[in-house]
Amino acid sequence: MKVHILTIGDEILIGQIINTNAAWMGEYMTTRGAQITGITTVADQKKSILAGLEYALSLADVVLISGGLGPTKDDITKKTLADYFGAEMYFHQETYDSILSLFARFGKPSTEAHKEQAFMPKGAEILKNKKGTAPGMWFEKDEKIIVSMPGVPYEMKYLMEYEVGTKLFERFSISPTIYRTIMTAGEGESRIADKISNITDKFPSHFKLAFLPNLGTVRLRLGVEGKDAIKSKEELKIAVSEITEAIPELVYAYDEMKLEQKLMELMIDAKISLSTAESCTGGYLSHRLTSFSGSSAFFKGGIIAYSNDIKHKELKVSEKTLKNHGAVSEETVKEMAKGVLAAFGSDLSISISGIAGPTGGTKEKPVGTIWLAICNENLTETYKLQLGKDRLKNIEYTGNYALNALRRFVLMNYSK
Amino acid sequence: MKVHILTIGDEILIGQIINTNAAWMGEYMTTRGAQITGITTVADQKKSILAGLEYALSLADVVLISGGLGPTKDDITKKTLADYFGAEMYFHQETYDSILSLFARFGKPSTEAHKEQAFMPKGAEILKNKKGTAPGMWFEKDEKIIVSMPGVPYEMKYLMEYEVGTKLFERFSISPTIYRTIMTAGEGESRIADKISNITDKFPSHFKLAFLPNLGTVRLRLGVEGKDAIKSKEELKIAVSEITEAIPELVYAYDEMKLEQKLMELMIDAKISLSTAESCTGGYLSHRLTSFSGSSAFFKGGIIAYSNDIKHKELKVSEKTLKNHGAVSEETVKEMAKGVLAAFGSDLSISISGIAGPTGGTKEKPVGTIWLAICNENLTETYKLQLGKDRLKNIEYTGNYALNALRRFVLMNYSK
Repeated sequence: MKVHILTIGDEILIGQIINTNAAWMGEYMTTRGAQITGITTVADQKKSILAGLEYALSLADVVLISGGLGPTKDDITKKTLADYFGAEMYFHQETYDSILSLFARFGKPSTEAHKEQAFMPKGAEILKNKKGTAPGMWFEKDEKIIVSMPGVPYEMKYLMEYEVGTKLFERFSISPTIYRTIMTAGEGESRIADKISNITDKFPSHFKLAFLPNLGTVRLRLGVEGKDAIKSKEELKIAVSEITEAIPELVYAYDEMKLEQKLMELMIDAKISLSTAESCTGGYLSHRLTSFSGSSAFFKGGIIAYSNDIKHKELKVSEKTLKNHGAVSEETVKEMAKGVLAAFGSDLSISISGIAGPTGGTKEKPVGTIWLAICNENLTETYKLQLGKDRLKNIEYTGNYALNALRRFVLMNYSK
Repeated sequence: MKVHILTIGDEILIGQIINTNAAWMGEYMTTRGAQITGITTVADQKKSILAGLEYALSLADVVLISGGLGPTKDDITKKTLADYFGAEMYFHQETYDSILSLFARFGKPSTEAHKEQAFMPKGAEILKNKKGTAPGMWFEKDEKIIVSMPGVPYEMKYLMEYEVGTKLFERFSISPTIYRTIMTAGEGESRIADKISNITDKFPSHFKLAFLPNLGTVRLRLGVEGKDAIKSKEELKIAVSEITEAIPELVYAYDEMKLEQKLMELMIDAKISLSTAESCTGGYLSHRLTSFSGSSAFFKGGIIAYSNDIKHKELKVSEKTLKNHGAVSEETVKEMAKGVLAAFGSDLSISISGIAGPTGGTKEKPVGTIWLAICNENLTETYKLQLGKDRLKNIEYTGNYALNALRRFVLMNYSK
């Protein structure tokens, strides 16, 4: 199936918005077996749309159009397509009813412009849009398929996933692909590839695995293609278990869950509280820990000890330790973690001290040297990282590392 | 001048990368007076590139091509363009010399593939690329201009700004536009528009002003178009001063400087130190304060008092205050700010307590109620915000608000 993506909108041409719709559609269709012949963006003008459509049709069997269907844009796409197909407009009661019910739900009155939206070109199949007022339209001409969708990203995605995709894959006898994402932390892409190669080497050709790395975390997106969805689901389930069993310590969740969400779940389950002592990350770890609602159930707070005197005064790091070992040392992070544990009376604490960069390193402790410690009443663990020179990357990587180290510590010491 | 943007690359079609180059070029050319007739993305294949080029040339006077010039991609764009123009390839010594000197600078050997990169099509004007190995090419045919640039964003931008743009504006007698961005914080877009309307209403038609708002900050991008660059610069300077004088308390800097950078500059100049006491922002403000190198010169650290007992224990907020007024109150943030000032011995402190949401509000204190206090030894100021229900937006807005309140406090009380 050859597919061309046609996006309509002046705001894309002048660079006011970036064309994320095209990237999403490109990925959605490619990962499901289609070939994208091109992406074309045109202005909100009849002449531009027609030229773009002709070009797209010269290269592909299917043209997916997004944009230009809103009530404010004078329905330029709809009128242009109606003219192109020589179709009259008629009042589509079902569309108007669904617009009215949408407005009723939000308690707002609809306008005359919305009544206009219910006029549809004859001959087009109307694709019901449960997420907005403008339905999709499916046209066919000379063995080619042209689908028009709104430009609002979540409306377009809804129509692609629940209407357009299914119809296209059926028509072109393309087997759908079912996906699951395995969320990992703690190893890089190539190490993980090594560790699971005995499984992935045996994957049949209808299995597809993508590695998506980001600063200490790697998402493994596994897809299984097949006409029989029940069989595909079963195959996917088995493969996901096999991979998880090969790297149990790295897999923390499935399907886009964040590390801090998983950690919150584990902490609340185990009924334990946490406090932090941050130096070089300057509050970033605590910000991550509190970015989901409900975090006050386990997070008591922390001390950002950016200067040495605060490390001593607030966290009781001894002056001797600071003098003999320096602020960036195993000894200091140990005392920081113990200090905040005592001060905050939490069950668990974590500390971080390092040189975030880009300047401030020495020969023995170059930029990117980071020490961490996790402790509870009985136990202290320390970790050392050697990162690069990019300040914000170092801070974010350390944040991910700390969240994962906490997750491992909780699993190891508190799981039932 | 009608311009078509042609981007080449499979990675764009399959959605692996988002087409930020096209957005950048679209904005760059539009703000300088060109009309974009469309954006077309094609595959790394001769046939696709030629079809896209024909389509682009049917709509525009100028085609700006980016992508497909790297050494790994077999120079498909260059060969395709050479074929299209019927041009032979020749060895371009200057290009090879600059490739060699680039590698010498990085202390790495060049490969045979890089020698290949020095073969150029006859008839093309070679545009020197100081940022990478692949130069740009400028072709002309039948009154049309076709420019080919690498896809690496900073190389493309370099060529656009220093080679392509200048040549195009000269050729089409388009007057260049000179820009300056006024950075503001503390008022919304429409209030600012009101306050400067007596100035902007009188702007001649070659002045262009764009309002770019983001969570409590608004950037005002002012452009002056004109053939005489010296005159334009003078006009721009006057207009920027007039706007600044109309809203002196809102303008904090020019040309994309961040609030935390400006605050760091002011604090270091005034030789004053800062500590923080954060509740609902959970470390986000401190993270912002430490995201630029050099922040340890003024930032001593802070206490994240997420739970009430920590507000009492670490920040000495009295139990009576917490009981009578609650954690989210003017009285509590006052005591929090005084508590951290005393504990950390800083010159200045800031405190924040609120309900970030999306849940946890009451009738008297709905979600989005945020209190802040700033104090020094003699003075305490408090601020109240009433925001929405989006947790992360509330946190970010409060961060911007706090940074700006600190900036105002320092200017008011410490400027010489």
